Amino acid sequence: MSETSEKDAVVTKGLKGVLAADSSICLVNGTEGKLLYRGYNIDDLATQGSFEETAYLLFKGELPIPSQADEFKAALAASSWLPEPVADFLRSLPKDVLPMTALRSAISVAGAYDPQGDDGSEDGNLDQVFQKSIRLTARMATIVAAINRLRNGKDPVEPDPGKGFAASFMKMMTGKDPTDDEARAMDLILILHAEHGFNASTFSARVISATLTDLYSSITGAIGALKGKLHGGANTEVLKSLQQVGSVDKVGAWVDEIRARKGKFMGFGHAVYQTEDPRAKHLKEYSRRLGEQQGDTRWYDMSVEMETLVKQAINKNCNVDFYSASLQHYMGVPGELFTCIFAASRIVGWCAHVLEQLDDNKIIRPSANYIGPMDLSYVPADQR
Amino acid sequence: MSETSEKDAVVTKGLKGVLAADSSICLVNGTEGKLLYRGYNIDDLATQGSFEETAYLLFKGELPIPSQADEFKAALAASSWLPEPVADFLRSLPKDVLPMTALRSAISVAGAYDPQGDDGSEDGNLDQVFQKSIRLTARMATIVAAINRLRNGKDPVEPDPGKGFAASFMKMMTGKDPTDDEARAMDLILILHAEHGFNASTFSARVISATLTDLYSSITGAIGALKGKLHGGANTEVLKSLQQVGSVDKVGAWVDEIRARKGKFMGFGHAVYQTEDPRAKHLKEYSRRLGEQQGDTRWYDMSVEMETLVKQAINKNCNVDFYSASLQHYMGVPGELFTCIFAASRIVGWCAHVLEQLDDNKIIRPSANYIGPMDLSYVPADQR
Repeated sequence: MSETSEKDAVVTKGLKGVLAADSSICLVNGTEGKLLYRGYNIDDLATQGSFEETAYLLFKGELPIPSQADEFKAALAASSWLPEPVADFLRSLPKDVLPMTALRSAISVAGAYDPQGDDGSEDGNLDQVFQKSIRLTARMATIVAAINRLRNGKDPVEPDPGKGFAASFMKMMTGKDPTDDEARAMDLILILHAEHGFNASTFSARVISATLTDLYSSITGAIGALKGKLHGGANTEVLKSLQQVGSVDKVGAWVDEIRARKGKFMGFGHAVYQTEDPRAKHLKEYSRRLGEQQGDTRWYDMSVEMETLVKQAINKNCNVDFYSASLQHYMGVPGELFTCIFAASRIVGWCAHVLEQLDDNKIIRPSANYIGPMDLSYVPADQR
Repeated sequence: MSETSEKDAVVTKGLKGVLAADSSICLVNGTEGKLLYRGYNIDDLATQGSFEETAYLLFKGELPIPSQADEFKAALAASSWLPEPVADFLRSLPKDVLPMTALRSAISVAGAYDPQGDDGSEDGNLDQVFQKSIRLTARMATIVAAINRLRNGKDPVEPDPGKGFAASFMKMMTGKDPTDDEARAMDLILILHAEHGFNASTFSARVISATLTDLYSSITGAIGALKGKLHGGANTEVLKSLQQVGSVDKVGAWVDEIRARKGKFMGFGHAVYQTEDPRAKHLKEYSRRLGEQQGDTRWYDMSVEMETLVKQAINKNCNVDFYSASLQHYMGVPGELFTCIFAASRIVGWCAHVLEQLDDNKIIRPSANYIGPMDLSYVPADQR
């Protein structure tokens, strides 16, 4: 809140490298290409874990024992039905509303219908905030799926939480029971996107929550940040590239064309990972698998060719966004919904960070370096 | 996004003192008790300016010449009617919804009905964002007033922008034409709360907008932050204190009681101003004036007595929140709406900061200092 106007002031634009807090949620080691959630390697969670378990781990700091896992799954399942007024609200929106705008609004509205939405538990009752986090995680997926259905003129599909979170989410999205691999692919996407440190949306959630506002306010703000084109939309752009290229034999010309106009390859390179993004290989594997099962490996094959040629051209590895495009395409998720799916996963990281922030809170208020004019004389309007 | 885990890392909790950006919008000089908007002293703006002019100044960096002022007022007036779907949405909310929850949701929903809401103009077309800022400023007041009416079971009142922004806002709030002093009091409140540097809600708006998301996302997030009890709610607490005390002769005992239990005096002291908050005296003057005009100086008299006795007791000056409580009470604004009125003013500062952020943008992503466990072995669920 205070401003300074010293001439030799050091401004850290974008707060790059500034350590804003201690955190024990996530370690991103960009040099080794390693990602840990609460100390556990993302590869272990991706190959052996589930989204429910990952959410519990991120919220509580430890993997659940079986009884805790059962209780947590039951709580998620119990909140997976949409409150009727929120469903009515979604139905009232124009059919062509941007999915992220619908999601931002619906989560804010859901706060009005959560009996603990505004109960002030953020000021000390962290177990209540944990319970709210479970409700929000469950409802986010249901809302995302309802948005997808309604924009296609279809009715929302009831959840089927007995099959697990990811399978139920897939069924709500597509209206059909997913195959085991389709459900597992959704599980993987939800696990891999759940958390990644102080990115812009997570930091937004922490800044908002540090005023001791309610969790719905923090998550609504985070959705708004994730919606930004510098943050959550890269995999949608990757899909557009694939659609534009159309076939494997045209990838080379496309790469040359982008290079010639000094364009950007979406889904390649990373602000932190100097080596491979550890999440990419898991998505690649499921993109291959679903492509083969569906007898249509074109999207996977184009992706592999792009990965190879872009690496040759600019020596950049693909990141988490790259294979998530072809994979979600095989899963029947339209590109316009990719950022909403991201949100349905990252909600877990957002809530984990809000819980951590509230556990040892201090309002987040940096300073500005004032460079404007000083002590101007006010001239009345009629003399200007 | 990157994390570090060095043992001697310096963490700046709450980012206190960290210079996050250059800014030419606002200077808060806490030592001299001086507040400048774009170089102009708040006292000049409070005594000679208007909210419309202040909004133009904060958005554009200069006071408007008459033709600019006229055009700006006309644009505000044209957007002061609520889009019908937003009005319907407000009517659909439960009557006991928290006003700030209704406001957060309605602004998000308004984005869905603004043809430029999601047009991507934040990525380079700042004039479009300026136009959106005007629309949001106009609609915020109309939405706040509608929330106030609906929660009392009354229909929203049409705007009457020909009388000026503040008078129209007062009429929409209360249903009656305000007196000149009531309208001027609202103008004053809107001017004085419009901007105050990198507070938590403004910083939230900047962090969100730096992803190049839409303005509605940034403002929705900022409303959520302002809602927090460490941020926007102090004047509501002041009114509660006044209501609890009840009469001038009981102020002394109340002060003693708070001191005895080491309680906090709401509306006193400030994170930045070491001397008087320059905004307080203007509100005090209008609290006195309206009290006298209404033949009921009790709320003003209690406030003066509190100001005197708290200063004697703990040597703290009152801040902007203190006289805003008795003043708004005289204006017929219920305490539950105070934070919404704050938002209807601060929207201008939020938009000004978003415009400044977008003009020279860099995504805002500090780092976390990782203090959690490393490389834990994953144990399958059935072996835990």
